[in-house]
Amino acid sequence: MNQKYPSALLENAVNELSSLPGVGRKTALRLALYILRRDVAYAEGFASALLNLRKEVKYCKVCHNICDDEMCGICADPQRDHSLVCVVENIKEVMAIENTGQFRGVYHVLGGIISPIEGIGPGDLQIASLVDRVAAGDVKEVVMALSTTMEGDTTNFFIYRKLSPYQINVSVIARGVSIGDEIEYADEITLGRSIVNRTSFNDSIKI
Amino acid sequence: MNQKYPSALLENAVNELSSLPGVGRKTALRLALYILRRDVAYAEGFASALLNLRKEVKYCKVCHNICDDEMCGICADPQRDHSLVCVVENIKEVMAIENTGQFRGVYHVLGGIISPIEGIGPGDLQIASLVDRVAAGDVKEVVMALSTTMEGDTTNFFIYRKLSPYQINVSVIARGVSIGDEIEYADEITLGRSIVNRTSFNDSIKI
Repeated sequence: MNQKYPSALLENAVNELSSLPGVGRKTALRLALYILRRDVAYAEGFASALLNLRKEVKYCKVCHNICDDEMCGICADPQRDHSLVCVVENIKEVMAIENTGQFRGVYHVLGGIISPIEGIGPGDLQIASLVDRVAAGDVKEVVMALSTTMEGDTTNFFIYRKLSPYQINVSVIARGVSIGDEIEYADEITLGRSIVNRTSFNDSIKI
Repeated sequence: MNQKYPSALLENAVNELSSLPGVGRKTALRLALYILRRDVAYAEGFASALLNLRKEVKYCKVCHNICDDEMCGICADPQRDHSLVCVVENIKEVMAIENTGQFRGVYHVLGGIISPIEGIGPGDLQIASLVDRVAAGDVKEVVMALSTTMEGDTTNFFIYRKLSPYQINVSVIARGVSIGDEIEYADEITLGRSIVNRTSFNDSIKI
């Protein structure tokens, strides 16, 4: 349906809002009319927050996480274990792992995952800088925390190969049945993995 | 859960995005990271579209629909029947009715609906200017196209009383739109039919 808008400004705003992922034209219209009902200061705060995010945000020179300075708060924290590096795909995974409060090491954000279908090769990711960090000699263990997809496994393997010349441990996060899930309903691959990679009972109750 | 953000700029953007209706913090983060992946020109276009909408948009001096000039395209159109005025709650209803292609009259946007619970009284709506339009003498019929809720019925009745001194027809759109449904979401055929088959206000309150 070719919707007619009473105002070119409204149409423009709806076009922009509906360019966001998961926002259709009807939702975009609702959001635009909501902004119209609020005062000008709200619209200014909203617009400048988004623009500042895009223009001012920096990426940590060590781990490539987003931050407001040269180095992110995690890499700058002397309390963290800088010999333990967790490799993740994106910023969201850093936030998810930080929220668990279980990880005291540092991160390395790849900025994506090897995906030939989407045309993303190893050169598009922050893999060289990970190798440089390891080559510098302070890293003792690299924990791979990528998605368990074909792309994730490919990336895991690629990085494992790249790091093999160095005397460090490369581990992957444990895969198994989620806490609170019924074993009966777990998929076979996950359940199989969780049996093969079973841990000592004493270790499992430490958390 | 009190999520920690690696960047104050990101947190600020997430705060603003999650202030939109129907957008939670997780969706807001997804949208913020999407904007971060796009180029600066996109962020600038996005921000300025929203800011311009709020700052530059005008309201038609006749019908209070939003527009880019003094008068909206519908009120300025000599082909439209200016003796037939359709009273709606908001801009979205104008767009919905225009999309049916069944209405050749003009509109009057109240800017809301009488709702004691939300503290909206007749004085907060564009009712006085509707009475002025009718008093000016060119209007022959007023079609009430408000939502079929208690608030809509109250507003209908209030306006009907205000217009009763004048020699005009006051009609309501046919109740082909099911009771309790919002006009915005009615399908075009039902909504179009309900405008063609509008009934006299007196008849409609007999039910």
